[in-house]
Amino acid sequence: MPASETVELAGHLLDSGLLSRIVDDVGEYGADFSFDSFEVGRKFTDESRATITVSAADSQALARVLMRLQTHGVNLVDPGEARTREVEHDGVFPDDFYSTTNLDTAVRLGSTWVDVEQPEMDCGLLVWDDSGRSRVRTIPVSEVRAGQRVVCGAAGVRVRRVPRLQAGDKAFEFMNSQVSTEKPQALLVRQIAEQMRSVKADDGRILWVAGPAVVHTGAAPAMVALVRAGYVDVLFGGNAIATHDIESALYGTSLGVDLAHGRGVEHGHEHHIRAINRIRGCGSIRAAVDQGVLTGGVMHALVAHGKDFVLVGSVRDDGPLPDVYTDVIEGQRAMRAQLRDVGFAIMVATMLHSVATGNILPASIPLVCVDINPATVTKLADRGSVQARGIVTDIGLFLEQLAVELVPGFRD
Amino acid sequence: MPASETVELAGHLLDSGLLSRIVDDVGEYGADFSFDSFEVGRKFTDESRATITVSAADSQALARVLMRLQTHGVNLVDPGEARTREVEHDGVFPDDFYSTTNLDTAVRLGSTWVDVEQPEMDCGLLVWDDSGRSRVRTIPVSEVRAGQRVVCGAAGVRVRRVPRLQAGDKAFEFMNSQVSTEKPQALLVRQIAEQMRSVKADDGRILWVAGPAVVHTGAAPAMVALVRAGYVDVLFGGNAIATHDIESALYGTSLGVDLAHGRGVEHGHEHHIRAINRIRGCGSIRAAVDQGVLTGGVMHALVAHGKDFVLVGSVRDDGPLPDVYTDVIEGQRAMRAQLRDVGFAIMVATMLHSVATGNILPASIPLVCVDINPATVTKLADRGSVQARGIVTDIGLFLEQLAVELVPGFRD
Amino acid sequence: MPASETVELAGHLLDSGLLSRIVDDVGEYGADFSFDSFEVGRKFTDESRATITVSAADSQALARVLMRLQTHGVNLVDPGEARTREVEHDGVFPDDFYSTTNLDTAVRLGSTWVDVEQPEMDCGLLVWDDSGRSRVRTIPVSEVRAGQRVVCGAAGVRVRRVPRLQAGDKAFEFMNSQVSTEKPQALLVRQIAEQMRSVKADDGRILWVAGPAVVHTGAAPAMVALVRAGYVDVLFGGNAIATHDIESALYGTSLGVDLAHGRGVEHGHEHHIRAINRIRGCGSIRAAVDQGVLTGGVMHALVAHGKDFVLVGSVRDDGPLPDVYTDVIEGQRAMRAQLRDVGFAIMVATMLHSVATGNILPASIPLVCVDINPATVTKLADRGSVQARGIVTDIGLFLEQLAVELVPGFRD
Amino acid sequence: MPASETVELAGHLLDSGLLSRIVDDVGEYGADFSFDSFEVGRKFTDESRATITVSAADSQALARVLMRLQTHGVNLVDPGEARTREVEHDGVFPDDFYSTTNLDTAVRLGSTWVDVEQPEMDCGLLVWDDSGRSRVRTIPVSEVRAGQRVVCGAAGVRVRRVPRLQAGDKAFEFMNSQVSTEKPQALLVRQIAEQMRSVKADDGRILWVAGPAVVHTGAAPAMVALVRAGYVDVLFGGNAIATHDIESALYGTSLGVDLAHGRGVEHGHEHHIRAINRIRGCGSIRAAVDQGVLTGGVMHALVAHGKDFVLVGSVRDDGPLPDVYTDVIEGQRAMRAQLRDVGFAIMVATMLHSVATGNILPASIPLVCVDINPATVTKLADRGSVQARGIVTDIGLFLEQLAVELVPGFRD
Repeated sequence: MPASETVELAGHLLDSGLLSRIVDDVGEYGADFSFDSFEVGRKFTDESRATITVSAADSQALARVLMRLQTHGVNLVDPGEARTREVEHDGVFPDDFYSTTNLDTAVRLGSTWVDVEQPEMDCGLLVWDDSGRSRVRTIPVSEVRAGQRVVCGAAGVRVRRVPRLQAGDKAFEFMNSQVSTEKPQALLVRQIAEQMRSVKADDGRILWVAGPAVVHTGAAPAMVALVRAGYVDVLFGGNAIATHDIESALYGTSLGVDLAHGRGVEHGHEHHIRAINRIRGCGSIRAAVDQGVLTGGVMHALVAHGKDFVLVGSVRDDGPLPDVYTDVIEGQRAMRAQLRDVGFAIMVATMLHSVATGNILPASIPLVCVDINPATVTKLADRGSVQARGIVTDIGLFLEQLAVELVPGFRD
Repeated sequence: MPASETVELAGHLLDSGLLSRIVDDVGEYGADFSFDSFEVGRKFTDESRATITVSAADSQALARVLMRLQTHGVNLVDPGEARTREVEHDGVFPDDFYSTTNLDTAVRLGSTWVDVEQPEMDCGLLVWDDSGRSRVRTIPVSEVRAGQRVVCGAAGVRVRRVPRLQAGDKAFEFMNSQVSTEKPQALLVRQIAEQMRSVKADDGRILWVAGPAVVHTGAAPAMVALVRAGYVDVLFGGNAIATHDIESALYGTSLGVDLAHGRGVEHGHEHHIRAINRIRGCGSIRAAVDQGVLTGGVMHALVAHGKDFVLVGSVRDDGPLPDVYTDVIEGQRAMRAQLRDVGFAIMVATMLHSVATGNILPASIPLVCVDINPATVTKLADRGSVQARGIVTDIGLFLEQLAVELVPGFRD
Repeated sequence: MPASETVELAGHLLDSGLLSRIVDDVGEYGADFSFDSFEVGRKFTDESRATITVSAADSQALARVLMRLQTHGVNLVDPGEARTREVEHDGVFPDDFYSTTNLDTAVRLGSTWVDVEQPEMDCGLLVWDDSGRSRVRTIPVSEVRAGQRVVCGAAGVRVRRVPRLQAGDKAFEFMNSQVSTEKPQALLVRQIAEQMRSVKADDGRILWVAGPAVVHTGAAPAMVALVRAGYVDVLFGGNAIATHDIESALYGTSLGVDLAHGRGVEHGHEHHIRAINRIRGCGSIRAAVDQGVLTGGVMHALVAHGKDFVLVGSVRDDGPLPDVYTDVIEGQRAMRAQLRDVGFAIMVATMLHSVATGNILPASIPLVCVDINPATVTKLADRGSVQARGIVTDIGLFLEQLAVELVPGFRD
Repeated sequence: MPASETVELAGHLLDSGLLSRIVDDVGEYGADFSFDSFEVGRKFTDESRATITVSAADSQALARVLMRLQTHGVNLVDPGEARTREVEHDGVFPDDFYSTTNLDTAVRLGSTWVDVEQPEMDCGLLVWDDSGRSRVRTIPVSEVRAGQRVVCGAAGVRVRRVPRLQAGDKAFEFMNSQVSTEKPQALLVRQIAEQMRSVKADDGRILWVAGPAVVHTGAAPAMVALVRAGYVDVLFGGNAIATHDIESALYGTSLGVDLAHGRGVEHGHEHHIRAINRIRGCGSIRAAVDQGVLTGGVMHALVAHGKDFVLVGSVRDDGPLPDVYTDVIEGQRAMRAQLRDVGFAIMVATMLHSVATGNILPASIPLVCVDINPATVTKLADRGSVQARGIVTDIGLFLEQLAVELVPGFRD
């Protein structure tokens, strides 16, 4: 039986491509729509406001297109109350579970709007009672347990679009436009430096996600300087960045590059596996630092300055290092636990861990992705990290210049 | 104290770039060498033979450069006997453990040469007594247990270079040359088809490693046809290929593409997480097939035709599907268990799982890597899979043409 | 002195990102705007209509932003009459010349709207008297002569947006979305074949723009089959495609590839320069065919079937072949002369000649660009060829499959 | 009738992959070979020496394979005397003309070895009498005139391989290895700076070949600083770099980027064509500087400091600027005329002009190619510029850092 609902959206609708995406999505889900009203601001700075009736073949199809539209910040005019259902089996949501966006979200339980804790995309919404007060947080499907209650259907859920960057962010805003190698890169570096200083001034934490190219491009000293200067609060990565960093510290080499002499080889072969074995013998990276085995490099700097890191393994890993989470679900859990107070995230030269971090980051945390490969940058935005800004550039020179900007005396 | 050893190598030394690599490696390890003899074949088809003395600062440095040279098939003239040492701690090799290549390897224990079982790179060599007979196999560092004995140092180990492709493989051989998009692709497809027929005629198994682009490019029907026709014995992949294949079967969509109508969207959003939830509810992919929930696509075809698959997760996974190994070490173990009788491996459109498979494959198994991204193909060879042949092409058209070659009536 | 004008636009404004681009451009030119009216269609298929007042610092700045907006099909509500000015120096327009778009354009001279002949972007508008009737055509700056009259300012010029693809083009439409390697490629090939059949059924001509990868990928036989079957009316290219095609016909090789045996070398070296010398000795490609020197390949097929080709040289050419225009302005002129009746343009594997052709093609001619490099495809659209649809795929397999679709018996 | 000749080669044969290439080429040309002698140096620093008999089906086939082998520095043991033939038709060589390499070459005329002037690949060898003394220089096929004499066949021609980089160049040498994005980039910048200082100290000229990305990435100020400091003696480029540089100077924009504010648009549209028109009105770039129209940017700096530039057009050009050679043969001639005393060539962000320059540069001039696209770098080496060293990096940051290294006070 055909069903319809009226939704509304407001904001800078004209200059954001938002309407195109909504039209596309409605078509994609085989639904239909009509405009009930459309008020357009007269000036560039004015907001527009639209009311749209969306109709679909049945209420289930309708619920799904409404959830989809919420990823764009589109809410029901009359949201009603949220419905919850009890989970029957561990690790399985009810069929009509509400699938989350990464936007700020609120759920109406009874007559109260409750803010969702830890916004994250592609999760369910867990509702629980905390001393008589209802609370709601996101929960991944693998974590849900029988007996818990999750929100089902699209009713009673409201999201808030990420606000446009404000006038004060003007300079930073231009990264908004498409990924491009043809941009004034030196200017970009300065803006990111400015952003980092501002986050630190507000006591925010800076999250780095980094791949082994940081080591291969000779940028480890720049990264170490940034750690020492306080611009790296937590690092997410895999076995590779830590291994090659440690290999470089122990043997002066890193997969294919003798950094001191700049000579390249193919596969470093046994250097890296021997480095891993050495650290396994120590028990952990921290232990290797404490025992005086590991005395330099990025991992050493993180340990020495009391910074956090989460290393999550992948199927291509050798070893791995003892600190690496070999279970990816446990790894995701450890990453989530480090998101508190993060005010800025920067991803350099890793597609796997960048996408993984994009998956769990709220859209409200500014995010810059730096890679020489445009595909990495594009992929992140395509997968729903709408706040992602991309810079296609060389990691080695980028980090060196960032250190020059942020760390007095770095080049001297 | 300076130490030196004499090594020898034989084969088609002149036309393989082998000598350059040996010279590079000796330099890389800070060692030195001199030629004792060099006999060159008069004709193209003749083999050459060289004897070289390698010297290094001390015996430990020498042992390491000798191990490195073994990755090129270079052996000691006088290999002596292998030395073994007992492992002291779980998951940690002795410092001077022999680090393996992926070549056919033998170890001299007492006066006997024992063939190494399951050649794999970057492992140790486990020696054990099997009813009075010494056996040797590769063991990854994470699997080794205190009390086991592993080979240490370079003495007593001999490797065998992968033989050049023979005259009969002439046509196939040209893939030998560098990665290139500018090659007669249609010819390449025919040669791979020929290779697959020949492996099946010898009762060999064909291993596929595939990424989700197989689904996104609309090539799933071609892949299903290849499964049905018996050209897919085992599939390695991640959560993504199975999820998008199943999403496509359940909802007719796959991350960004409505395959029937060819319309694209950004992130499929809740389709894929709902597909995962559905299969989690069934218990497994096989259960979903048995319950009639999953009735089409690549995963269905594998189950329906009794073929094996190993899905290993990564940190960027949603869900995951219940069949996915979330612990990557367990996943590697499951992959190793499927290598028996594999006579040909083909990797399509996945860098992560291709490199992971390259890590555990013996160099004796022919391997073709197909990807639109040249970097994937290059990376595999750079990491030591010397037998890898690369084809830079479009996966969708490649699989369609391969199915046309191998499956009578596919296009009709 | 501030100046303002009112413009209007109509069509599928919501789902095309058009409004975003207009807002961006107005900002880019330091101008301002306000909405006077905005009528939105209720349904997906309804058109919207907007009236906007644009204001700028002075009338010259206003004229320029208005010209810019015309590239998006935005016209003045009250266009007034066009003003023309006499050209003072050969090859130099007056300062305030009207710079054209590639859209269908009309100019009001006196009270009459005159259609512009040969729409082309980045030109001037030449007005002349033809037996008492005013005519207007585009003219490149290098062709204009002192004494000619060209339109100046934005008044009196009206453009027509390329209409959205119609319902009947539905299948073809999805290429509308972003460039992607992850699309059902086989489906795309079939749709292009369908488009070509339809153009030929309407007596339209098909324009090909092709690079040497057509030869290197072994696709020349497919291309020859398409020429013979009548699907190639005119070919634009450079010295390279013709040289490597002829080299292949004369010596069986093409830059780095022995196509019969599939063996690769680096630079074919003297083969190609000798092939060029040979044809120079004959006098022209046609003469080489007539003299029995050239008996196969794409160029031979074009000559044998009376098809046209325009080869325009570049600074990296060896030789060149006698048919190659070494003066690029003359080459552009020869290309323009071949655009009559072209109903479909397809560009394969060449960035230089694709962009060159995009520069002179009216936006009304459908255009597909096929390349393994996404950048080529993106560049074309970025430079103003809004009608361009991109396919990122392998040229060799693409042409083979296109020939299978269009040429009965091709694979037999 | 089968024919054979004995050739010899000497040098660092083992570590250069040279033997592999020779074996490949002999096979490619359907010829055969046998080793007569092979003396290998005992130590890394010793040279090796080989004598090889090459045989082919007939003397013509033999001559061609011998010419091919000369590209690798392989000479006849008994070179005999060169044979010359008179050119019969303008622009056409005799069929068996000697096709040149870019190596230092000498020709035996009578009993005298005459050095070839202006080594360049893919040319003929023109022999003429200069006051009783025979001289020889390269001549492109398009320049040769009836009645001139050119060398035919392989006899009497000797080439000299580019010597390996010497001990002093050790640091620079590592760029020798493969193209890679994963190298210590900051180190590379310093080495190039060192190389430039050294060339200037020897009164050598530095040749730059640059594309418009220099402007788009915001690197024009760095480039201007390098011009002022004397590190740019001559610039080769196309219409695009000069146009976008001038557009930027006149309007503060450059194709898609407002450099001051960092905002991007699609196609700059009429800005660039208006900039071109403006300079056409002035008569030339120099005239625009003299008239005070052009007051900043790279082209202004070149004119103001009396540096040379050669701009050669292409078929995709708008305009073009009055200084642009529209005839590519004339453009090549102008480029050749600027090669005198060039001691170092650097190519940044342009494939077309880099390959064009590679075509005419002697192999003896060191050459570095910098591009974010690995394909540009690879292509250059593949086409015969064996001395080319590649750096895959971001042009914007690269030039900024190079200016920091070379121009005191640049960043202050």
